[in-house]
Amino acid sequence: MNSFELAARLRTVLPSNSVLHDTEDLKPYECDGLSAYRQLPMIVALPQTEEEVVEVLRICHASKTPVVARGAGTGLSGGALPHPKGVLLSLAKLKRILKIDPFARTAQVQPGVRNLAISEAAAPYGLYYAPDPSSQIACSIGGNVAENSGGVHCLKYGLTVHNILKLRVITIDGEILEVGGEGLDAPGYDLLALMTGSEGMLGVVTEVTVKLTPRPEKAQVVMAAFNDIRKAGNAVANVIAAGIIPAGMEMMDKITTQAVEEYVHAGYNLDAAAILLCESDGTTEEVAEEIERIGAIMNRSGATEIKASRDEAERLRFWAGRKAAFPAAGRVSPDYYCMDGTIPRKRLADVLSGIEALSSKYGLRCMNVFHAGDGNLHPLILYDANRPGELALAEEFGAQILQMCIKAGGTITGEHGVGIEKIDQMCSQFEASELEIFHAIKAAFDPEELLNPGKAVPALRRCAEHGAMHVHRGEEKFPELPRF
Amino acid sequence: MNSFELAARLRTVLPSNSVLHDTEDLKPYECDGLSAYRQLPMIVALPQTEEEVVEVLRICHASKTPVVARGAGTGLSGGALPHPKGVLLSLAKLKRILKIDPFARTAQVQPGVRNLAISEAAAPYGLYYAPDPSSQIACSIGGNVAENSGGVHCLKYGLTVHNILKLRVITIDGEILEVGGEGLDAPGYDLLALMTGSEGMLGVVTEVTVKLTPRPEKAQVVMAAFNDIRKAGNAVANVIAAGIIPAGMEMMDKITTQAVEEYVHAGYNLDAAAILLCESDGTTEEVAEEIERIGAIMNRSGATEIKASRDEAERLRFWAGRKAAFPAAGRVSPDYYCMDGTIPRKRLADVLSGIEALSSKYGLRCMNVFHAGDGNLHPLILYDANRPGELALAEEFGAQILQMCIKAGGTITGEHGVGIEKIDQMCSQFEASELEIFHAIKAAFDPEELLNPGKAVPALRRCAEHGAMHVHRGEEKFPELPRF
Repeated sequence: MNSFELAARLRTVLPSNSVLHDTEDLKPYECDGLSAYRQLPMIVALPQTEEEVVEVLRICHASKTPVVARGAGTGLSGGALPHPKGVLLSLAKLKRILKIDPFARTAQVQPGVRNLAISEAAAPYGLYYAPDPSSQIACSIGGNVAENSGGVHCLKYGLTVHNILKLRVITIDGEILEVGGEGLDAPGYDLLALMTGSEGMLGVVTEVTVKLTPRPEKAQVVMAAFNDIRKAGNAVANVIAAGIIPAGMEMMDKITTQAVEEYVHAGYNLDAAAILLCESDGTTEEVAEEIERIGAIMNRSGATEIKASRDEAERLRFWAGRKAAFPAAGRVSPDYYCMDGTIPRKRLADVLSGIEALSSKYGLRCMNVFHAGDGNLHPLILYDANRPGELALAEEFGAQILQMCIKAGGTITGEHGVGIEKIDQMCSQFEASELEIFHAIKAAFDPEELLNPGKAVPALRRCAEHGAMHVHRGEEKFPELPRF
Repeated sequence: MNSFELAARLRTVLPSNSVLHDTEDLKPYECDGLSAYRQLPMIVALPQTEEEVVEVLRICHASKTPVVARGAGTGLSGGALPHPKGVLLSLAKLKRILKIDPFARTAQVQPGVRNLAISEAAAPYGLYYAPDPSSQIACSIGGNVAENSGGVHCLKYGLTVHNILKLRVITIDGEILEVGGEGLDAPGYDLLALMTGSEGMLGVVTEVTVKLTPRPEKAQVVMAAFNDIRKAGNAVANVIAAGIIPAGMEMMDKITTQAVEEYVHAGYNLDAAAILLCESDGTTEEVAEEIERIGAIMNRSGATEIKASRDEAERLRFWAGRKAAFPAAGRVSPDYYCMDGTIPRKRLADVLSGIEALSSKYGLRCMNVFHAGDGNLHPLILYDANRPGELALAEEFGAQILQMCIKAGGTITGEHGVGIEKIDQMCSQFEASELEIFHAIKAAFDPEELLNPGKAVPALRRCAEHGAMHVHRGEEKFPELPRF
């Protein structure tokens, strides 16, 4: 079936204006948040109901057409990059909040609902949806499920997988699956967890039941400055080792604080090699006690300055700087490459030193800003795409950071997913036998590989061509990080 | 290969005394905690190392011999019931604690390590392993992973899946998989969650890395009495709706409190239709504040008596009664059948009324004792196996309870698993399309169905023969529970 025939076929089940086929209409869908990769899809389908999603999938299945599902397109690993011979299936029009149940503390929503819109709808009941990716104004819950998104608060409140109860999923052959349930556990294999983070490879989500969390009475944040990035890394480990789970624990290095300070005037210590932001939430008494304990630990860990936010305005100002880190990177460098790796917390100081060494080696600056509490790094490699060779250098620098994460017992992604960006690093992360299991699971849902082909899990052939040696994860076997 | 040849073959890779073949040696393995089902295995293998596990699985794979893995054998759904033509693979000898890392707050252990032994080993560091099934003195962590076990504390601290980080798993063809990692999230599909609770159908666990939790400074428990079981059910929902996550919230009805009181002298209110035990843990100040709030909610919910434990001895006495509920059932009835279903918390009062009605209908008493906070019911149906027909009546009563759980939007198991016991109820819980996905996942790991055949996921053929109508879960479609 050629693209005109397929478009015509799709128009028998969708309103005509919900099937886009002209190049200029397709253009807005050519990339997601990873704009270094661009590709026009053959057709864009914009269903408005679950029935229409089922019909689109049935047609694609019958005609062996690849399907790439897309939420808000804010993803940073190219998971929603279109397939040139495929249908880009946008879930943007499925954006109804079907039900808020304040008693059961759940919300039942369609996939196109924005992350923040759920919290807004739940606010009158004193509830909110806890996972808060930086893109939460724009990103949709369907995409959050596909990528198992995190955010500043996920240290205390968990990732997407910990905050959802039930999914309705359409398989490639148009079957409706309900996975999960309202109870704490479900019999059978854990399909809810399997679907979450599967990057659109196993099915298309048409409904999500999320847990809602009571809004804490009070929140306060401590800003601690350190003259040595290793001390800051150890302070993070010390807070956690003391049994405190902060509502958020973020670190920024000197380049970052300097870049954001002139922009948001957060009141950061600009002489510090690194600052930590550590938030406590709960009842007023709990917060007062925890903030005191956090302050004492920062002090013992060698902080040169410790400030607790005095009021809500100051708390928001402290966070505004952190949230502006990515835009601020755009002010100090023409281009930047945002990495996403996760390491065991106790290796923070080592890996930060390693990144510093790599920065000297490649002659490229790197801003370090990240979810320190859960070991999720977001190094921003600064480069100038107009200087010949710098993009390639930045990419090599980035790949070295990810290899270092694996060697430190961590992983190549924290919350941005694998998508197309890190598909080759998957060859380093996993053994062939593990990738084979992934492929077999994929085949259980989608034997013809029509859903998001070429993403998330590399073909074994690709790994062989890429020539990646599998670096077995786990520090036990690689106690030493490479020296640069 | 006949059983003698197979035993000889196994003795080439295991010490001779680790391969049991004589009937009297096999006898102790004929059942697990669900002793109504008994079956001698063909052979019992008792490997002592991971390498030996790999060798046993390779031999079974090559000879197409079914393999049933077994931990401590405390399971209550017959998940470790032997296969008459298979090898019973006991992991009991893999019982080393490989490492306690107090800084990362993890323990790396072999599958045969007892649940409580992990907490004992972690105690010097002020840490413990949170999931605490009633059988925790005896049950092993490998079995906990296979069943995704819970316990009194799982309301606040999560199920097994929330408390493990990494698994080493041997596939049926002897490949070693490492799933999960020390970071918060891992790329690829979530095999850690998929393995957890898969009841020995996908692989054999040889190593578990668990999270350790800091022991709280203080714990206190409130005992609240109610003259109406519906009020007690609503009190549970009210506590949760107020944003409190108790460390444990358990309910017992009148038959249960009376049966246990004369046995443990816990100080329960014996006139109450139901009592609730609700625990708070944390710092001394947190506990004081939370206990006050819990008391106020119990009061508003209509409690006729509210007592907070005055010291640690009284707290332990309050819990001793709860923990003795199963043995106490043995004192008031010659036989009992322990059920395990989960329902949304808000349906507690409805389902309890339904069980009361069923109890009258079948003329059998039923003790209700359960993890109220997470909606996990453990009705104990009392019967006398010596009276003709009573076992069959008890089983029918039990099946009706599970159907009611499904209709209330819940599931047929909370923490005991499906095993052999509830395999037919799986036909009611799931649609054929959902069961097909389960089978396809099974085939991805074990296409010849050698691992624990006949358990957990029913063949579609079996469902057809069983004649179960699929009762679609979710109260939306079945707002009314059946009237008896």
